[in-house]
Amino acid sequence: MSLMIKDLSSLHYTDNFWKTEKHVKECRSLKFDCNAKKKWRAITASADSSGSRSIDTINGKKINGVHVEGHSQSGQRGNVVESGSSSSPKHSYMLGNFVEDKFVYRQSFVIRSYEIGPDKTATMETIMNLLQETALNHVANSGVGSSGFGATREMSLRKLIWVVTRIHIQIEQYSSWGDVVEIDTWVDAAGKNGMRRDWIIRDSNTRKIITRATSKWVIMNIETRRLSKIPEQVKAEVRPFYINRFAIPTAQIDSEKIEKLNDETAQIISSGLAPRWSDMDANQHVNNVKYIGWILESVPINVLEDYYLMSLTLEYRRECQLSNVLQSMTTMREIATSASDKNCGLECTHLIRMEADRAEVVRARSLWQPKQ
Amino acid sequence: MSLMIKDLSSLHYTDNFWKTEKHVKECRSLKFDCNAKKKWRAITASADSSGSRSIDTINGKKINGVHVEGHSQSGQRGNVVESGSSSSPKHSYMLGNFVEDKFVYRQSFVIRSYEIGPDKTATMETIMNLLQETALNHVANSGVGSSGFGATREMSLRKLIWVVTRIHIQIEQYSSWGDVVEIDTWVDAAGKNGMRRDWIIRDSNTRKIITRATSKWVIMNIETRRLSKIPEQVKAEVRPFYINRFAIPTAQIDSEKIEKLNDETAQIISSGLAPRWSDMDANQHVNNVKYIGWILESVPINVLEDYYLMSLTLEYRRECQLSNVLQSMTTMREIATSASDKNCGLECTHLIRMEADRAEVVRARSLWQPKQ
Repeated sequence: MSLMIKDLSSLHYTDNFWKTEKHVKECRSLKFDCNAKKKWRAITASADSSGSRSIDTINGKKINGVHVEGHSQSGQRGNVVESGSSSSPKHSYMLGNFVEDKFVYRQSFVIRSYEIGPDKTATMETIMNLLQETALNHVANSGVGSSGFGATREMSLRKLIWVVTRIHIQIEQYSSWGDVVEIDTWVDAAGKNGMRRDWIIRDSNTRKIITRATSKWVIMNIETRRLSKIPEQVKAEVRPFYINRFAIPTAQIDSEKIEKLNDETAQIISSGLAPRWSDMDANQHVNNVKYIGWILESVPINVLEDYYLMSLTLEYRRECQLSNVLQSMTTMREIATSASDKNCGLECTHLIRMEADRAEVVRARSLWQPKQ
Repeated sequence: MSLMIKDLSSLHYTDNFWKTEKHVKECRSLKFDCNAKKKWRAITASADSSGSRSIDTINGKKINGVHVEGHSQSGQRGNVVESGSSSSPKHSYMLGNFVEDKFVYRQSFVIRSYEIGPDKTATMETIMNLLQETALNHVANSGVGSSGFGATREMSLRKLIWVVTRIHIQIEQYSSWGDVVEIDTWVDAAGKNGMRRDWIIRDSNTRKIITRATSKWVIMNIETRRLSKIPEQVKAEVRPFYINRFAIPTAQIDSEKIEKLNDETAQIISSGLAPRWSDMDANQHVNNVKYIGWILESVPINVLEDYYLMSLTLEYRRECQLSNVLQSMTTMREIATSASDKNCGLECTHLIRMEADRAEVVRARSLWQPKQ
C-alpha cells in the first residue's frame, strides 16, 4: 500500500521522506488488535520522556485500566481536574423543533466568534453552514431520517443521497458575534424528480427576517455517482412534509441562466486551488459550502473589504474530489440601480472549473453593495 | 485608491479586468450617503428585471419604507413568509455560565454537521474553535470584558490584545455530529507577564473528560504589533479570576522544544499557501486556528485517513498577514511505544514559514495513532 499524495504541483518530497514512507507502509500492513486508547497512553508517555517505557507505568503510577485520569503530580503546584465531576444537564433545548403542524422545522443558533469575518459579521460560509445544519436536523428529527447525511431510510437502503443543484440566498442584514438567529426550513416538491427546500432566518431579537434562501435538490446514487429518479417509497416518506410556501416570491428569485465564463470573458483567474482533506464531507465529496471560499479567491480584496455580499446564487454542475485542482474565475460589472443613485453596486459572475480539462464545477452569481 | 491584489503568483488578470477596476475606483471615491438597505432593494429589483427601475416601486408595489417584505405575487402558487410572526423565545440558556465561585466558565455545544470531517468526527479545527469561543465568552461575561476580541476594558483603553504563544491539546476521544460537549475554562498567572488558560472538554452524556488543553498568552499592542508588559490595571482586572488548577498534569504537558525544520530536515514541503480574506480575524491577523489546516497540508493523505490526531502542540512565533505566502513542512518518525506493541504511532514535527524570506511563523508537533 503506497501513500497517496495529492496532485499538487507545489508539493514536493525530500530524500528523508521515503524512509518514513517505508515505515508507514510497514506499519499499515500490521493488524492493529491492540487497544487504541492503551496505545495512545503509551505514546504520550514515551513522547514525554523521549524514551521507551512500559505501558504498565506512566509518570510513576500503576495503570489498572484504560481510562487513567491524571492526578496531582510531584512538583505540581495546583490541582488537576478529574472526570466524572459535575452534574449532567439536559441538552434537548439546544436542538430545533417542529412548528406549524410539523411542516416547518425551527432551530436557533448563537453566532460564534469563529463564524464572523474580519468585518466582525457572520460570513456567507457561516450562513450556508447554518442552513445546512438546519436542513439535516429537519430530516434527522422527522422520523424518516437514517444514519446517512440527510438521507431518508428508504434512500439509505438504495444508497441514494440528496445533492443540491442550485441555491439562491438573499441577505438583508448580517449578524454579529453573539447574535441569536432563528432559522425556519421546509420542503416542497420541485417538478417530478426534485425537491425544493426554503429557509428564512430571523434576528431573534428584532424578529425581522434578515435572510431568505431557496434551493433545489435531486437524488444521486452514492456508488455510481449518477442521478436517479425519486423512488416512490422515498416520495411516500417526504410527501407528508411538503408545504406550498415560498421564502422568496418567485418573481424575486434569481432563476436566470448564469453565463459560463471562459478565458476571454473572465477578468480575474485564480489557479492552483486544491481541496483539502477537511473540505470533504461525509458524502465523500467537497462540501457545497466550501466552494464559496474558492469563489471569493478571485474577487479583489477591496471588494471583499468595502462591499457587502447581498445575494449569491450557486449552480452546482459537477462533483469535486480531493485529487482535483481548480480554477476560480470572476467577471464584474456595475449594477444599474435607480435613477437617483449612482451605479455603485457590483454584479459578479463566477466559474469554478477543473484546471486539467476545464470541466465546469460551479457557476455562480453574486451581488454586492458598498458598505457605508 | 488602487485595488490591492494578493501576492499570489497563480492569480492573473485578463484585459477586461482593468475596465472594472476603473469602475471600482470611481465608485469608491463617491460619498455613500444613500440608505444602504434602500439601495440593496433597488439592486435586487434591477437585477431581476435586467433594466433600470425606480426605487419607489418594486414588483409593482409601492414602497413606503426600508423594511419592505415580500407578499404573494401574481402567479405565485404558495404563500410567502413575512417578518414579525412567531413569538420571541429567551436564548440566555444558549450561552455559558460561571461555576465554582466564578473561577470556572462553563459552556455546552452541540457538534454541528459542518464541524465534522470526512471520518464523521469533530475536526481539530472544530475543537480549537470551541476552545476559542469559550475563552472569549469567559472574558465577555466576566464583567471586565470590552468590545474587543477577548480584551479587557483596561487593555482596550491601551490598544492591547491577547496573543497566544503556545497551545497544547490532548484528545482522548473525538465527538460526532449531534454529540453535546461541555467545556470548562479558567485562567492563572504564567510568570510575570503571561497568562495561562486551560480547558477540559467533557462528553455531556458520559461525563468523561475527552480533551484537555493548556495555553500561554501574552499581551501585544495592536498598532505597533509589539509585545508589552501586562499593565498593573490589567493585572488588577484579571487577578480575581486566577485559579491554581491544571487541566493536564505538568509532567504530561508537551513543553519540550520543537525542532525548527529546514530544507534538509523536512521530509515534505507544501508551498504557495496563501491566506484568504476569511482567514483573518477581528484582530487583523490570521486566526490561530487557521494554521492547523496549513499544517495538515504537508501531512500525507493516508496519515490523515488512517490515523487519529491525538496530540497537537502549536508554538506561534510570528504574525501572518493577508499578503504573506506560506510553506508548510513536515517530518515524521515512528513513535517508541511499549515493549509489547509494534511502533505504529507517528510523531510529526511541522513548520509554517514565509515563502519569501523563510521567516518562521508556527512550529508544531503532532502525535498520531492508527485508527482501529
